[in-house]
Amino acid sequence: MLQATERPGEGRRAVILVSGGLDSTTVLAMARTQGYECFTLSFDYGQRHRAELVVAERASALLGDVEHKIVTLNLDSIGGSALTDPAIAVPEEATPGIPVTYVPARNTVFLSIALGWAEVLQAHDIFIGVNAVDYSGYPDCRPAYIAAFEAMANLATRAGVEGKRLTIHTPLMQLSKADIIALGLGLGVDYALTVSCYQATDTGLACGRCDSCRLRREGFLQAGVADPTRYRP
Amino acid sequence: MLQATERPGEGRRAVILVSGGLDSTTVLAMARTQGYECFTLSFDYGQRHRAELVVAERASALLGDVEHKIVTLNLDSIGGSALTDPAIAVPEEATPGIPVTYVPARNTVFLSIALGWAEVLQAHDIFIGVNAVDYSGYPDCRPAYIAAFEAMANLATRAGVEGKRLTIHTPLMQLSKADIIALGLGLGVDYALTVSCYQATDTGLACGRCDSCRLRREGFLQAGVADPTRYRP
Repeated sequence: MLQATERPGEGRRAVILVSGGLDSTTVLAMARTQGYECFTLSFDYGQRHRAELVVAERASALLGDVEHKIVTLNLDSIGGSALTDPAIAVPEEATPGIPVTYVPARNTVFLSIALGWAEVLQAHDIFIGVNAVDYSGYPDCRPAYIAAFEAMANLATRAGVEGKRLTIHTPLMQLSKADIIALGLGLGVDYALTVSCYQATDTGLACGRCDSCRLRREGFLQAGVADPTRYRP
Repeated sequence: MLQATERPGEGRRAVILVSGGLDSTTVLAMARTQGYECFTLSFDYGQRHRAELVVAERASALLGDVEHKIVTLNLDSIGGSALTDPAIAVPEEATPGIPVTYVPARNTVFLSIALGWAEVLQAHDIFIGVNAVDYSGYPDCRPAYIAAFEAMANLATRAGVEGKRLTIHTPLMQLSKADIIALGLGLGVDYALTVSCYQATDTGLACGRCDSCRLRREGFLQAGVADPTRYRP
């Protein structure tokens, strides 16, 4: 099913951040197609949509990951986001500026732990599904941020001292949601198995109203593909 | 007791990484002296020397922190260090190169979580007790690394988008252990309350033989100060 013309990852290990959502599942399929041995990483960080952990594990196994690890950390003790503080509601309509679903420094924390695992695995490639087109205005999804993280990472570890180069791959950065969907379908991703909703039910049913659901639904519409998402009644 | 000539931190909040050890306790005393409202942060990350958490809490309270938070994350599930993997012994003599007590990406992970908390607190100052003189050869204690982290942090968060500048303070970077001790004593730090040992007992008794104990003992010797450390029999 997976078609490959170039396999730059052949014989290399990579750490892939996966959330069970549309974007990161597509990234995993891309990394596999490029030949990487994929070690997938998810976080139990006190998020309200913990259904994603089960989804991420299942989707990753179906796409042939070598190992899936869940790291637990209580970011909810810091709060400051609708995703980790039950007292802040998830908005169900578009809001100006950086939305309250932004989790302070989340991508930095996740990439840092991925960096640690990559060092233990002697992997020099980390994949993350951030996107600067159809995104929610989060500061830690911008290309300049990723470039700065990569520069820092190359000074942070044993590999950096030894002159080995670590790369943060963001293959979705410049793609629209519709492009991502078309790409993933071409790689055999079954999006019915993915869950993007910020307030999914325990069984993975989506609300259809949060920012993440809206971007996803519009993506299927623009891609001209039937939306396989399971919405709650 | 605390003498201050300049108080650049007056009216400002800061996040201080504290481990209950000699260095970070001195950093906290310095930040307090500079007038910062100090929010102290420790990590329960699966380290073998968990006595440090109790010590850090007590030492921070004595030095007048506003709040002490412990964030839990299971870095031991990643392993790769004598401090988080019980199967790797803590060396009791000097070793060449980066020692096995190095925890992959630890400072990056800790600073990232500090960055998240700083964002919630609307603090723009983070203090960390890294040192490039009497240190153990860890890649994530070097000035170039800290500069790169700061550059990344300024792109990572809401504050960065709004043009507010975040600073990573490393006031010990260029000091010898003896200088740090002399400085801390001048600020009223009681080093008998601090624990630096990588394999301290549950009651905080030091082994006297690990790298961290050796550097600390030599520091007191060079400072011409009696070593108040409680060693195990």
